[in-house]
Amino acid sequence: MQVQASDGDARTGCLTTPHGVIETPTFMPVATYGAVRGIAAADLQAIGAQILLSNTYHLHERPGDATIAELGGLHGFTGWRGPWLTDSGGYQVTSLAHRMKLDEEGVTFSSPLDGKRRQLTPENVIEIQERLGSDIAMVLDQCVPPDPERNEAMNAAMERTLRWAERAAGARKRADQAVFAIVQGGVSETLRARSARGCAELGFDGYAHGGLGLGESRQARRDSVRAAHAVLPVEAPRYLMGLGRPVDLVDGVACGVDLFDCVVPTRNGRHGLLFTHEGVLHIKNARYRNDDSPVDARCDCPTCQAHSRAYLNHLLRTGEALGARLAALHNLRFYLGLLERARVAIGAGEFAALREEVTARSEQKLG
Amino acid sequence: MQVQASDGDARTGCLTTPHGVIETPTFMPVATYGAVRGIAAADLQAIGAQILLSNTYHLHERPGDATIAELGGLHGFTGWRGPWLTDSGGYQVTSLAHRMKLDEEGVTFSSPLDGKRRQLTPENVIEIQERLGSDIAMVLDQCVPPDPERNEAMNAAMERTLRWAERAAGARKRADQAVFAIVQGGVSETLRARSARGCAELGFDGYAHGGLGLGESRQARRDSVRAAHAVLPVEAPRYLMGLGRPVDLVDGVACGVDLFDCVVPTRNGRHGLLFTHEGVLHIKNARYRNDDSPVDARCDCPTCQAHSRAYLNHLLRTGEALGARLAALHNLRFYLGLLERARVAIGAGEFAALREEVTARSEQKLG
Repeated sequence: MQVQASDGDARTGCLTTPHGVIETPTFMPVATYGAVRGIAAADLQAIGAQILLSNTYHLHERPGDATIAELGGLHGFTGWRGPWLTDSGGYQVTSLAHRMKLDEEGVTFSSPLDGKRRQLTPENVIEIQERLGSDIAMVLDQCVPPDPERNEAMNAAMERTLRWAERAAGARKRADQAVFAIVQGGVSETLRARSARGCAELGFDGYAHGGLGLGESRQARRDSVRAAHAVLPVEAPRYLMGLGRPVDLVDGVACGVDLFDCVVPTRNGRHGLLFTHEGVLHIKNARYRNDDSPVDARCDCPTCQAHSRAYLNHLLRTGEALGARLAALHNLRFYLGLLERARVAIGAGEFAALREEVTARSEQKLG
Repeated sequence: MQVQASDGDARTGCLTTPHGVIETPTFMPVATYGAVRGIAAADLQAIGAQILLSNTYHLHERPGDATIAELGGLHGFTGWRGPWLTDSGGYQVTSLAHRMKLDEEGVTFSSPLDGKRRQLTPENVIEIQERLGSDIAMVLDQCVPPDPERNEAMNAAMERTLRWAERAAGARKRADQAVFAIVQGGVSETLRARSARGCAELGFDGYAHGGLGLGESRQARRDSVRAAHAVLPVEAPRYLMGLGRPVDLVDGVACGVDLFDCVVPTRNGRHGLLFTHEGVLHIKNARYRNDDSPVDARCDCPTCQAHSRAYLNHLLRTGEALGARLAALHNLRFYLGLLERARVAIGAGEFAALREEVTARSEQKLG
């Protein structure tokens, strides 16, 4: 990645992938099964999405990585021709699967689909992602929620994640696919820095933070992320996995994070929680029933260009599928636009002011 | 309506409304609550929709016609700026509501929403539609399914529908809204012609066929529709309500029908039944799992332009919301395109050949 401008620890950059150049920092809409809820590739392009995220484990189950490989990988299969990042699915498996067994070899569990035994290992997770043909693949990691009283367990998980990263690196066969390691260590600065150093010594194309956004304080998260960044190569892209709210994004950018993903914009949209420049509005609230203004007067998304708060209120209250789609599209545009604003602000040396504005405003409840 | 070309009884025309000129014959996508399932106004415009249909009774319940009036009518409220037709909802009420009472005054029932008493009368159905601001309003009718053994009941319902039409005509206040009467009479040529004559004597802007598509044979339907058309003014638009399959559309066009609506394209799409020029394919079938061709190679819809059968198969099998949307969009385009082809064929005097092709092909099961 080419770092282009810096403002404190915040930075902008250009990340080149086989399917396009990504301007960072940016947000990756979540397309678990190769589709963002109700939103098509053309819609995502229209709102400035540069890279999508899908889930290795879920696609391995349905439709299967062999099928996707046969159809030209994720790019041929889905119709989204830009860059793809695939998450390993280890996090989902360890949090969702029943009868899960975690050992040095990997994760063994019974599939929620057919009850049959599945195993994810550092090696097969790379193999599956090579068949999926994503531009950026993630290693399998062992995630432990931050807990100062479980430092030993966290240390053990972090050390295992490092050993798994080494096995993942050894399993790589595709030169045209980037692989990112995952830094663990909870909110311990020592552990996270040690994890980052270990990953960097193995040498990956980028580095992600795992195990955050699980209840820790913003300050603790920032401190531990910074501690890791201090020992990571400057030119390597950094990805904060699974976070979060707008304030988490500007916090992350302030620490030098380049990539984000989160289900918040789509999930909140579906529930009628819409992000605006003035704060969060609960569109199903009766006060929007007769409101003919757009969701956000400063927003350039297709929802705000063509539809009113009153229409969104009606669609979400009656359970019309179009409501969830228009709401999610708006929220995704808010996230993508927020990071566009961050890029401009960093270039102008004014990121601190943007961060302050976002922290103050974007989560204010407007009712 | 200006009739432009004829081919047998089939005809093309231009129907001028306050919000645009409609080329007929055409199909009206169904937007019961002011939205087509998961499909936005911009999508509908892109696939050639000219006029949408929504439901008076449903919008009266939610969000309420006063609210919609305040927001600029259906056009301001929904973001679809082209013509709207509103169905009265009488059909839905009499088929769905519980504790329904039908008498000369109108239909009284308890609302499925709050259990409270509602009444639809010929007069208030017009008042509500005037508040909704649709370009074309429908009268309240009493619908009885075609049944040769219930001629007396059908005759009574047909006569009452005429009396209601007269009351509806008397309730009109808006000069900028067309009102269509509804012809009843089952598949009795005598009754349907008598009903049509009665409607025509009252003088409406257009005439619809109600009470069809309820199990009668195609031949019986065509004969009775033709009997009505023989006594209707040539320049008045004719609308066949709630039908149907592609073969029903070409049958209708052959009898001189100008407007159609039906939930079949959206509902079938949601269930994975896709119309193509070669026949109907059940996209969830395992044979499409690895099929990288578009749903229909001859289709110009956004789904076929960007996505494969394999992707649709995957989306619909995993229950991704995008699947229902892309499938419905394709089917709507098929319907709209079918009537575009009908217009061209009628202009060229080749409608019989098109009708034959559609009858033979479009409902063939491809698996």
